[in-house]
Amino acid sequence: MKEIVAGVDIGGTNTVFGLIDKKGKIIAEESLKTTDYPKVDDFVAALVSDIDKLLLQKKEYKLAGIGIGAPNANYHKGTIELAPNLSWKGIVPLTSLIMKQIDVPVVLTNDANAAAMGEMIFGGAKGMKDFIILTLGTGLGSGIVINGQVVYGHTGFAGELGHTIIVPGGRDCGCGRHGCYETYASASGLVRTVLYLLSEMREESILRDIQPSELTSKKIAEAAAKKDPVALEAIDYTAERIAFGIINAIGFSSPEAVFLFGGLAQAGEMLLVPVRKYVEMNVQPIFKGTVKILKSGIPESNAAVLGAAALIWNELK
Amino acid sequence: MKEIVAGVDIGGTNTVFGLIDKKGKIIAEESLKTTDYPKVDDFVAALVSDIDKLLLQKKEYKLAGIGIGAPNANYHKGTIELAPNLSWKGIVPLTSLIMKQIDVPVVLTNDANAAAMGEMIFGGAKGMKDFIILTLGTGLGSGIVINGQVVYGHTGFAGELGHTIIVPGGRDCGCGRHGCYETYASASGLVRTVLYLLSEMREESILRDIQPSELTSKKIAEAAAKKDPVALEAIDYTAERIAFGIINAIGFSSPEAVFLFGGLAQAGEMLLVPVRKYVEMNVQPIFKGTVKILKSGIPESNAAVLGAAALIWNELK
Repeated sequence: MKEIVAGVDIGGTNTVFGLIDKKGKIIAEESLKTTDYPKVDDFVAALVSDIDKLLLQKKEYKLAGIGIGAPNANYHKGTIELAPNLSWKGIVPLTSLIMKQIDVPVVLTNDANAAAMGEMIFGGAKGMKDFIILTLGTGLGSGIVINGQVVYGHTGFAGELGHTIIVPGGRDCGCGRHGCYETYASASGLVRTVLYLLSEMREESILRDIQPSELTSKKIAEAAAKKDPVALEAIDYTAERIAFGIINAIGFSSPEAVFLFGGLAQAGEMLLVPVRKYVEMNVQPIFKGTVKILKSGIPESNAAVLGAAALIWNELK
Repeated sequence: MKEIVAGVDIGGTNTVFGLIDKKGKIIAEESLKTTDYPKVDDFVAALVSDIDKLLLQKKEYKLAGIGIGAPNANYHKGTIELAPNLSWKGIVPLTSLIMKQIDVPVVLTNDANAAAMGEMIFGGAKGMKDFIILTLGTGLGSGIVINGQVVYGHTGFAGELGHTIIVPGGRDCGCGRHGCYETYASASGLVRTVLYLLSEMREESILRDIQPSELTSKKIAEAAAKKDPVALEAIDYTAERIAFGIINAIGFSSPEAVFLFGGLAQAGEMLLVPVRKYVEMNVQPIFKGTVKILKSGIPESNAAVLGAAALIWNELK
């Protein structure tokens, strides 16, 4: 029998899981509603039962392990801790709960670290030992790989670049602090930048006709594609701030590449070109020309499940 | 015969070297003037000959390897590259030049990375796998250890926290950029902070009677010990900025401890107490209470040679 793993992506609303082979091919995929299971024990029972059902349909495969990506996950402990978007309160020992039900290795990390593993095993970072992935969604997640290993740190929570401060006293952040990287370098950061620029600039803009609560990064990207001056300026401003965090990360770990992923990264070269320009302009001289800025090589739609699968494949090596 | 290593600290003016045993005991120490050897081949010949002379005096020991700390050192390549304070121009293949003369392993890294190794093998970081050392001298050097390994990165030059930008558009830096960490968090940064505060504050201060070109961190620490208000405020301001860089580094690698080392760290608790306070006040909630801020456990006078020795002992393991 051929070996296969399960990759599980736990979100606040849905949990998506699949069976993935060594090459990153998704053999089967399913989902369940996370919100249907206010008790974690019930969730675990349903998840294990559903994975078993998938395996019954694919009798030529044998399950070798389960990899999980989840918010506020602690890799060292196998726990989910104080996740604001999940109904399971406190510290949830998820991997041990699952291993009680099914006798395979189970590993757990947060979404961005799983994305980094996906990039390394199945994506654009194949063969790289030092790289960083930035997931530019509503917030900014990051996964850091050094010497071929995801950085978890002493606590298991390392790689929180979204909450490194890039502008002292800058924008209010959901974490209660100010000027965090994600308040500039994310989809919601781009929206805030448009609002700021609408105050600074006098140019006509179609963005003046959208109420702030309805403004999205997608609408801004569409406006930029139509050469709207405020949208273009906002993307340039955002690229400069994305570059700013990348520059500081380069000083820390000198990666071979930085991969951009997530909603904002879908803007593609329109964003990547100015990010590269600002990195090269402003990085320390010793690092000039040493870092590739790339779009993630993993398809957005399957990234979380593939990342979780890569996590466990890497452990099984 | 017992094994011993040579630790070598190459500085712009002097090169200090010693024979160090496995426990970090310095068995013999010597130095030569770096500036006497404008050609690197002559320097290597003199260094190898001098190490041989030390070994002849200690016949019970056998040389197992040589560790070297030097400015602009590339660990991966064993080279010194474009070091502004050395007369050897271009890219100097130092380890291979030495290995041609003496048949033992030779490794090379920069001063701060060597200090990190010293801390891990002989100092306060024994048993730690994730920590950072900041050397607060004229500039700010840093050595980062993750999973028990010094971070060298793709280029070999990782760990340059001194040139991460903590204040966008801030103080001019020697690197040609603005707002670098070391322009605030270093002995020279403290001097600049006093000059800034002399402009901001109206309080009497003995520091008003010292011409700026004569101002040193030592004089400022002495004034603070006498409760000079500008000196006290300058130390508090500096502690807050030191904390600021530490906070961002915690978000990156979540270390167990951060060690302060070098001239400014000699201020001891006067500096450590407010640094700890500002780290706890301003760090991301998830990391509160997780990081120890400590003075280096390595004596300042022997640190560079011990660090270089620790580097090679670690390779030989």
